[in-house]
Amino acid sequence: MSGEPTITVIGNLTDDPELRFTPSGAAVARFRVASTPRYLDRQSNEWRDGEPLFLSCSIWRQPAENVAESLSRGSRVIVTGRLRQRTYETREGEKRTVIELEADEIGPSLRYATAAVRKMDRAAGRAAPETSPGSSRAADDDPWSVTAPAGTAGQTAAFDDEPPF
Amino acid sequence: MSGEPTITVIGNLTDDPELRFTPSGAAVARFRVASTPRYLDRQSNEWRDGEPLFLSCSIWRQPAENVAESLSRGSRVIVTGRLRQRTYETREGEKRTVIELEADEIGPSLRYATAAVRKMDRAAGRAAPETSPGSSRAADDDPWSVTAPAGTAGQTAAFDDEPPF
Amino acid sequence: MSGEPTITVIGNLTDDPELRFTPSGAAVARFRVASTPRYLDRQSNEWRDGEPLFLSCSIWRQPAENVAESLSRGSRVIVTGRLRQRTYETREGEKRTVIELEADEIGPSLRYATAAVRKMDRAAGRAAPETSPGSSRAADDDPWSVTAPAGTAGQTAAFDDEPPF
Amino acid sequence: MSGEPTITVIGNLTDDPELRFTPSGAAVARFRVASTPRYLDRQSNEWRDGEPLFLSCSIWRQPAENVAESLSRGSRVIVTGRLRQRTYETREGEKRTVIELEADEIGPSLRYATAAVRKMDRAAGRAAPETSPGSSRAADDDPWSVTAPAGTAGQTAAFDDEPPF
Repeated sequence: MSGEPTITVIGNLTDDPELRFTPSGAAVARFRVASTPRYLDRQSNEWRDGEPLFLSCSIWRQPAENVAESLSRGSRVIVTGRLRQRTYETREGEKRTVIELEADEIGPSLRYATAAVRKMDRAAGRAAPETSPGSSRAADDDPWSVTAPAGTAGQTAAFDDEPPF
Repeated sequence: MSGEPTITVIGNLTDDPELRFTPSGAAVARFRVASTPRYLDRQSNEWRDGEPLFLSCSIWRQPAENVAESLSRGSRVIVTGRLRQRTYETREGEKRTVIELEADEIGPSLRYATAAVRKMDRAAGRAAPETSPGSSRAADDDPWSVTAPAGTAGQTAAFDDEPPF
Repeated sequence: MSGEPTITVIGNLTDDPELRFTPSGAAVARFRVASTPRYLDRQSNEWRDGEPLFLSCSIWRQPAENVAESLSRGSRVIVTGRLRQRTYETREGEKRTVIELEADEIGPSLRYATAAVRKMDRAAGRAAPETSPGSSRAADDDPWSVTAPAGTAGQTAAFDDEPPF
Repeated sequence: MSGEPTITVIGNLTDDPELRFTPSGAAVARFRVASTPRYLDRQSNEWRDGEPLFLSCSIWRQPAENVAESLSRGSRVIVTGRLRQRTYETREGEKRTVIELEADEIGPSLRYATAAVRKMDRAAGRAAPETSPGSSRAADDDPWSVTAPAGTAGQTAAFDDEPPF
């Protein structure tokens, strides 16, 4: 996809991430990030909090499972992705449109925290202590090469599934 | 600072981060990120690696120490900050200008890894298991409120120090 | 302001920009940008349009007047600014929150167009053919140095005004 | 191409853009943007200029010609694209690597200027007054659908040409 506005948001998770699976077995995590800007009050010469922005985010497949395992309510994160709008119908039959973030990458911020990183052992689907990325890099970067859970109809289909929320 | 071009880079550390301290005691970490783009080869319909971009980055104070403790050669990271140029003189007296990234936030990517996050206990300067951010938030976000090591002349001075590299 | 998520959006104006003035005389323009992503259909090997994103934007003071004078429905623009959320009440007394873009800079895209640029003669408030930026640069970049229309109570006050929409 | 760090830079052209053509007839424009950040001097409570960043940029095909026709030394621009590194050899046989911006979109900033926009009449290759984008949109957005000058070997080849600088 090209031409979608990309954005990086830094903030805190308002709740634990919610992990679900599509019928075809693709994982998707949803979470909300509260990003609070700061401004310098020129009167008092002090930094003050501005109005927070609350942005709903989703991330797919293996990273979704990693998010659910690694992050929780209050975690400060860096999340980067593409801004999208989604239209849905309320119970009253009214159409509403919301702007959300389809995340490409997310990680815990190291501003106020340290992190013990465990690199996925992708063959086994389990985490192993992180080592240097090696020759397997080219294949692993391809989102379509991720091994799906048993019973999956196909990656492309799974990826196009509607979020199960 | 306003008007500096901001950028988010995703890639792998080419080496372990290098941590140093200014004479006044401010920590600064330097590291290099290799970011490899991918493109779809329309002939073969396969994704291929493009030419990597190598970007030198620096981050200051407590986050610098957290980076040195949490990341190592090969770690996949998300780093966001401001693009700057730096001019230096070679041993032959020739002036060279390089473009670098002054990082504001960095974290390990959860694309291929999980992370056990430990939030800093800022009073003691030690890491504690991450909990929800609380009332201490406003003060903690101010970079000038970070407690420096004993013997520090002053925060502002420390921040303006030349990198000790 | 620091820490607000910045974003650059490329798209077409859905309507002519709407220009208004606060009671204190500050100009503000509102407009909506439709940004249509493109994706490569790997089946047909052709580019196709994705779902457009519609983003409401506002820009303040002199640039607002320049926008109203230079752009119109259908104009392809590059707009960069900060993502913000705004809460309002519907006529039924229901609270709604929308995400909008507070634009810092905007310009017509030169992808499919040329542009004859006229630099503002700021003393007179009229446009003059663009010349190289000179010594007046430092002062002119300061948003608080912009001369307001007669009868303005004050710049800072004007800037904090609610949008007159 | 996916995964390249994207960046938006606002600044002034240091010189008139330089327009060249590859042997196969593809246009490419090169230009340099000086971006000067501003910071609030907390002592004096005044905005001051920081160190400028000078970034070399290139843009290809029809937009390159539009840039050459519309912009000149001193023009304030918004330019968005992807950061890339380029390695070249000096006359002394020394290898140097520089970081540059491959621009996707550029436009004159309306912060201190107005612009009379003329939309390209793509059939004739001449500019026409801008009107609403219509049904021709989908095809026109595809960079590979741009009509090249007579004698062009092929678009893809042209696009992969080395810059003729």
